[in-house]
Amino acid sequence: MTETSQERILSGFAASDGLVVGRAVRLVSTAELQRLAGSPEEERSVLAGAITRATEELEALAETQDEMGAGILEFQTALLEDEDLLAPVYAAVEAGQPADQAWIRIIDGEVTEYREGEDDYFKARADDLLDLKERVLAALHGRETAQVKLDGDIIIARDLTPSRFLELDWSLYRGVAVCGGSPTSHVAILARARGVPLVVGLEDALETLQEACPAVLDAESGRLILAPESATLEAIGRRLRAREADDAAAESLLGEPAVTAQGERIEILINADDPKVLAEVPVANCDGIGLTRTEFLFSDGALPDEQKQFEVYRDLMTWAEGRPVIVRTLDAGGDKPIPGVTVDDESNPFLGLRGVRLSLLKPEVLKLQLRALARAAALGPLKIMIPMVTVPEEVEAVRALLEAALSELTAEGVAHARPQLGMMVEVPAAALTADRFKVDFFSIGSNDLIQYTTACARDNAAVTRLADARNPAVLELIGRTIEAAARMGVEVSLCGDMASDPHHIPALLERGLRRLSVAPAQVGRVKLAVRRYG
Amino acid sequence: MTETSQERILSGFAASDGLVVGRAVRLVSTAELQRLAGSPEEERSVLAGAITRATEELEALAETQDEMGAGILEFQTALLEDEDLLAPVYAAVEAGQPADQAWIRIIDGEVTEYREGEDDYFKARADDLLDLKERVLAALHGRETAQVKLDGDIIIARDLTPSRFLELDWSLYRGVAVCGGSPTSHVAILARARGVPLVVGLEDALETLQEACPAVLDAESGRLILAPESATLEAIGRRLRAREADDAAAESLLGEPAVTAQGERIEILINADDPKVLAEVPVANCDGIGLTRTEFLFSDGALPDEQKQFEVYRDLMTWAEGRPVIVRTLDAGGDKPIPGVTVDDESNPFLGLRGVRLSLLKPEVLKLQLRALARAAALGPLKIMIPMVTVPEEVEAVRALLEAALSELTAEGVAHARPQLGMMVEVPAAALTADRFKVDFFSIGSNDLIQYTTACARDNAAVTRLADARNPAVLELIGRTIEAAARMGVEVSLCGDMASDPHHIPALLERGLRRLSVAPAQVGRVKLAVRRYG
Repeated sequence: MTETSQERILSGFAASDGLVVGRAVRLVSTAELQRLAGSPEEERSVLAGAITRATEELEALAETQDEMGAGILEFQTALLEDEDLLAPVYAAVEAGQPADQAWIRIIDGEVTEYREGEDDYFKARADDLLDLKERVLAALHGRETAQVKLDGDIIIARDLTPSRFLELDWSLYRGVAVCGGSPTSHVAILARARGVPLVVGLEDALETLQEACPAVLDAESGRLILAPESATLEAIGRRLRAREADDAAAESLLGEPAVTAQGERIEILINADDPKVLAEVPVANCDGIGLTRTEFLFSDGALPDEQKQFEVYRDLMTWAEGRPVIVRTLDAGGDKPIPGVTVDDESNPFLGLRGVRLSLLKPEVLKLQLRALARAAALGPLKIMIPMVTVPEEVEAVRALLEAALSELTAEGVAHARPQLGMMVEVPAAALTADRFKVDFFSIGSNDLIQYTTACARDNAAVTRLADARNPAVLELIGRTIEAAARMGVEVSLCGDMASDPHHIPALLERGLRRLSVAPAQVGRVKLAVRRYG
Repeated sequence: MTETSQERILSGFAASDGLVVGRAVRLVSTAELQRLAGSPEEERSVLAGAITRATEELEALAETQDEMGAGILEFQTALLEDEDLLAPVYAAVEAGQPADQAWIRIIDGEVTEYREGEDDYFKARADDLLDLKERVLAALHGRETAQVKLDGDIIIARDLTPSRFLELDWSLYRGVAVCGGSPTSHVAILARARGVPLVVGLEDALETLQEACPAVLDAESGRLILAPESATLEAIGRRLRAREADDAAAESLLGEPAVTAQGERIEILINADDPKVLAEVPVANCDGIGLTRTEFLFSDGALPDEQKQFEVYRDLMTWAEGRPVIVRTLDAGGDKPIPGVTVDDESNPFLGLRGVRLSLLKPEVLKLQLRALARAAALGPLKIMIPMVTVPEEVEAVRALLEAALSELTAEGVAHARPQLGMMVEVPAAALTADRFKVDFFSIGSNDLIQYTTACARDNAAVTRLADARNPAVLELIGRTIEAAARMGVEVSLCGDMASDPHHIPALLERGLRRLSVAPAQVGRVKLAVRRYG
């Protein structure tokens, strides 16, 4: 080895899977650029123009996005019309400050204030302001940065705002590494949805970066390797070829039933976070829907009426063509506030009124949902799943409401059927006492189960390392639930992120799980992992 | 039974143990009284006088209190000097509003704002403002309410502020019931410390209360019984006589060793939340200190130096006269923020950086504490306990710091000894995998273990019913830890509230626990429960 090694390995967290060999390039923050300022009058006019342009850009960008992306952008457009935000900037410009400096100063001040706030709402707002800061600055600078092709294909950024992420042309770049961030941030969610490999938490990556430096973005293990040695590149090359082979194999398995090496059939259901995704998923690729989140029905602040809910559930049944469809009752609270439903002032919302706890405080909301679900159950095997169950009394309280809903529908002569009633197992107490619950099925919510078993909030990057799905305690609680289901003769599935991660499939199958509910994009890879098991 | 029953049973939560038969009396809120207003000038002067008087009262009251009570009152005195608070009140008075109305309006506005804040700090501040509101109003009204003996001995209040509680002469009253509140509120802590029976959460108790109505305050089961029937009174009478006999028996057992009915010796250690309480506890009544919280050392915002820490630990060893003393390393975070140490912006602090997680991010603070503890260990059997352990790696990281501290002390020629190193078992993952930890002892922290196992924040009254120590899952995790300790041949104790509650003693002994660490005031009752077991 005569080669002088300059290889540097930086460790962070994998936030969106992938493995990329390429050239690293720094995404310059617009705030770091310079411009010449004019008179206060000129600056005022330039600033107004930049804000108008930023607004137009956001509106145009929103039109090209799906609902998730557009929602983020529309809120930012509203902020750009907020007089309380803009007035002090214009005042500073009239007092003689250059437009860009005034903008940076006022926005940074606001961001600091929001960041000092104690809750996620304000922190999310700080991120949006930073995003706007960059966008208006780019407009002030004539947009040198965002729309020019950068000289490299692995983007390294101090922070990456959601709108900047949405704006970059991901056909030109192959992955991104950021210094800050967490695997649960907004950008991480967008990156996973779009299949862009992302590593976060690379604290000092930017300090030492040479432009156009050869690099490996290992978004499997959460590392960025700068100036990799040839031995590293060879090893990565072998992994890349294996991944490509896997991708091809996964693709070819998409429409096949999932079967282990020993020939045992495993059911693969999908998670329908938003029923809109179903349009792109051939129903033949899966064995049904293992989790339908219904929070989206309540996202505009108004409670949806029975007919509106029924129509959504009916569409799910139509799509599923006779396959089972598990619908979870409203799981508000925790990190999912819903105006008029959730409690705002909890100091630990993940340990507070959420899921069924909240539903039982608002039985009229729950009963309406149960009525709509019972009506849809007339169209096929719809199953109702209760979130966040801790003790058997909660299941019995929901069952009583379901019985009341069924009686009402009968009395009214409305078509309906009795759906199966099951529960999420995500509270450790429920996993440890699963035998005590009288239900038709269990579904293990591994994300929350990990969170409570390890006492680590799933949105807190500082405790990510401790919130480990492979902790033997987590695996034991999963195993206990599977064993209880077997004793009771009821179905059990797992619908958390663990089921979508091929690395965890062997451990789950080993413990007797035979039914997985996964993200639609992961169906092929999960079927491949199943095929290799045994 | 010719008696016409008017008995009404109201259910809430027991917040401070007791059982009282007496007459219920309403504690009128001063805001409900009327007074005649003078000219704006007179009103201004009356208001200033009332504020001065309130300040003097608070200062005088603070002098009669222990540290806990005085701390609450001193913060209120500071608020009464806050110009930002007072200016708008004086402005309203000058504009023609009567002093009491202006005061009520402005303070209520502030309280509403604080209550809308998302964090406990602001909510606690709202309680303090309400307290001040009452006190200044009472001064404006010539103090008719607080210092007059009320016509009854069971006080019923809509809310009871901490200073109002501290001011009432508890030799004249025997218990209190409030409509709001939670078992974990400030007033609940004060009531328990002073032995005043308290029931909280009696939502509609005030609406129907007849003055001087016969009543039973059942602060064992969390009920208020108004106009009790004779049969109820007979049953309560039997329970009262049993309680009295128990109290006498507990008192007589104080200085005796704890022994079960079968003659098995149980170790009873005490929790030294604040070493000052030790002055009132004869050391012969216990088998050592099972938990010393060290957060009080950090409560004034400055990090205590090694010598100051050593002196505190030395005093504990002196008091214990050779008995074991378990000292827990700094357990900041969660609901115990410490400026400069804890992270302020966590959305779920109980699931965030707390206990050892935080200590390992500030190793210099932890190592200083370990040095001071190792020095005190030269004086007797001091044991170090690590809070909030989730995985074995955390224990090993602390052990490495302890080794470094010991090496330093040796190199410096400073007297010291190697303390035992143990851990709290309060995270479900730790209880489920206790065998994997290499420690000298376990101590089960039942409060947090219940909180995580049932996913219910222990300071959230809305989920109190679910956070049940008797949940079989909680008892299983306790039993698992005891069994692991037996296999490993290490000591295990339990230092949460369960150990201090005689009702839980049989279940704990049944699962093999032979070492309890209890609140000093509960030693006699716990020894009695032990004697009755078996």
